[in-house]
Amino acid sequence: MAQLFSSQTTMSYWQRVRTEVPLVLCMTNNVVTNWTANVLLAAHASPAMLDDGSEAEVLAAIASALLINVGTLNTLHAQAMTQAVASAQQAGKPWVLDPVAVGLLPLRTKLCCDLLRESPAVIRGNPSEILALAGETSQCRGADSTQGSDEALAAARHLAAKAKTIVVVTGAVDYITDAEHTLRVDNGHSLLQRVTGTGCALSALVAAYVSTASNKSEALEAAASACAVFSVAGEEAAQKTLARNEGTGSFAVYLLDALATLDEATLKKRMERKIK
Amino acid sequence: MAQLFSSQTTMSYWQRVRTEVPLVLCMTNNVVTNWTANVLLAAHASPAMLDDGSEAEVLAAIASALLINVGTLNTLHAQAMTQAVASAQQAGKPWVLDPVAVGLLPLRTKLCCDLLRESPAVIRGNPSEILALAGETSQCRGADSTQGSDEALAAARHLAAKAKTIVVVTGAVDYITDAEHTLRVDNGHSLLQRVTGTGCALSALVAAYVSTASNKSEALEAAASACAVFSVAGEEAAQKTLARNEGTGSFAVYLLDALATLDEATLKKRMERKIK
Amino acid sequence: MAQLFSSQTTMSYWQRVRTEVPLVLCMTNNVVTNWTANVLLAAHASPAMLDDGSEAEVLAAIASALLINVGTLNTLHAQAMTQAVASAQQAGKPWVLDPVAVGLLPLRTKLCCDLLRESPAVIRGNPSEILALAGETSQCRGADSTQGSDEALAAARHLAAKAKTIVVVTGAVDYITDAEHTLRVDNGHSLLQRVTGTGCALSALVAAYVSTASNKSEALEAAASACAVFSVAGEEAAQKTLARNEGTGSFAVYLLDALATLDEATLKKRMERKIK
Repeated sequence: MAQLFSSQTTMSYWQRVRTEVPLVLCMTNNVVTNWTANVLLAAHASPAMLDDGSEAEVLAAIASALLINVGTLNTLHAQAMTQAVASAQQAGKPWVLDPVAVGLLPLRTKLCCDLLRESPAVIRGNPSEILALAGETSQCRGADSTQGSDEALAAARHLAAKAKTIVVVTGAVDYITDAEHTLRVDNGHSLLQRVTGTGCALSALVAAYVSTASNKSEALEAAASACAVFSVAGEEAAQKTLARNEGTGSFAVYLLDALATLDEATLKKRMERKIK
Repeated sequence: MAQLFSSQTTMSYWQRVRTEVPLVLCMTNNVVTNWTANVLLAAHASPAMLDDGSEAEVLAAIASALLINVGTLNTLHAQAMTQAVASAQQAGKPWVLDPVAVGLLPLRTKLCCDLLRESPAVIRGNPSEILALAGETSQCRGADSTQGSDEALAAARHLAAKAKTIVVVTGAVDYITDAEHTLRVDNGHSLLQRVTGTGCALSALVAAYVSTASNKSEALEAAASACAVFSVAGEEAAQKTLARNEGTGSFAVYLLDALATLDEATLKKRMERKIK
Repeated sequence: MAQLFSSQTTMSYWQRVRTEVPLVLCMTNNVVTNWTANVLLAAHASPAMLDDGSEAEVLAAIASALLINVGTLNTLHAQAMTQAVASAQQAGKPWVLDPVAVGLLPLRTKLCCDLLRESPAVIRGNPSEILALAGETSQCRGADSTQGSDEALAAARHLAAKAKTIVVVTGAVDYITDAEHTLRVDNGHSLLQRVTGTGCALSALVAAYVSTASNKSEALEAAASACAVFSVAGEEAAQKTLARNEGTGSFAVYLLDALATLDEATLKKRMERKIK
């Protein structure tokens, strides 16, 4: 049902991002601001981060895309995020929702449910978050997921149909679906879960990639391309880390290096190895 | 008077943390959120960070332990932290206080004094902070300490007795005391003071370790184990940094690597070398 | 018109900072707190970061210098920053303004204009920001600049005269001017723009260096010395990164390493190479 995503298509969106250097306005949690900005810069995009609702209104109109991540939400942020989303909508800019720990925690659950009505271009979450947002029962444990992405695929399709959006559910396998079509990225490495904010940063990268799409079918491919680029970089970084008997500190550094130095041959080699 | 802590006991708590992967709810300062999360992940624990009081109430009941660090406190945080501590207390979860720059600055001094009555499982600070919190005179200089941990040992015992808690005072030597018994960890390296947030991250690690203790005597050992693991990792990282003529940037990366790859032989070798 | 700054003078201020270890109170944006603290520590200065206005009042009087960076401003921060600047003024401590994205965004533009009247010791910005603050027309794009530092030199001189301050405008070439005298630093590397917060961290370093000056003519040299130290460290880090085919992750680590291990010979070699 889910089609393995190709390295050729990934490459074409990777090239678009390099050319356009999209400016992603990030309203994200205070754990990952620096990391998210450095992931975007490594991946040839440009970050802009701010806190204030009135300033977000101005920048949402100028930016290429908007990221909303509710990881360390408070009531002031919730208001500012709502303002920013409205401004992005008005300016015709795509926005991406990362519903960290939705379902478990009340303030963010209410905000995410409200924002679902504001036409997000993409929702990116782990299986627990997507199950919770789709109205399924789910046991969340902080930002970690206790379910595999396979189990969440049906929920992802349901959510994509209900919210008329693209849903990206990431795990050992990433699924990218608009309810009708589903793409699959099989790359990645378990070390990605031992560094904080890899999922959050991927959501920002998805926003950068989706800003280069000119219609919804391209947006599906663009979101999958972001997943592929990030997962392949994760494999490159893990291989180097393990070969040198290093740990999670070096892995995070090598992940940025891999995003910055990624080339077509590496993408092709790592993505085609997964095709049976 | 203070007993040098053993590598065997350290190893047993290190093993408990690897098995239980405790979830530490961190309400910490905005300088060290990312670093603290990555230290916990490297050390085989799991971080959860949030900002809002009502959300903290929910998560404090689910988490294994709670960390309160007042480093960049504002009045909103003070309220949210008070809510979180009450919830942790009600749920029977241990909580750790890191009283950054207490005594010097008014808002945090008031909060720390109030929270002392809420039965922290552990207070972890540098000598100046422990002296200040114990009601001794002390000259604080931001987050740095101008006194050695030896001078603060008496104050630590006094504070432990007064607040019926465990006090960890860290410096060239770390002391871990419940007033009656005092353990000592002699490991560590001066480079740990050239990276921001090493003390803050150690407090989070203490919370993770203490969550695996089933009584107060175990909690004393668990807190000392966290100090030992962190200090030995610091020695490993410093040795690698100096051997390669590198600086504080590489040291921080190697510290995470060392926490992630630490093994029994390294702990034993580095801790026993200190026994005269 | 602009005089190339010498390595001998740089070295003398570098030595002052090593001796005095100035404590820089940083009220900065939430993207770069950790990074700024680690840059200051690597460069032998000491960071203190806080959020609350009443606490900032206390610490501004104790610190060696104050940094105000408006990158993720909100209304609460704006009040706290205004309080901190007033306290620094009263205590006779120099303060540095980093007007991130001024001109484009309303809240910060108002604050920066208000703070211009509070005698900043130095204003450090990119060309777009300096043009905007000088009342010139300028197209800002988030935190990035679309203009070269040469184009902004006239605006920098105008702003320095108007606000009776020192203006540092950084880019491929850095200019440091008090309107009458202008110094030039030609070092640096384009990789510095692929890591978030390098400009923000340089502003903090300028605050540390300027705190060692005893008059305005020394302050001009001190500010130029901070630019030189940072730019030379950037060159060292870039050379190592490129030689090893690494990327932006390693570059950020090596930049901290280079700041921590910088010596007179390296400064001399890299700065004199630029003298035609």
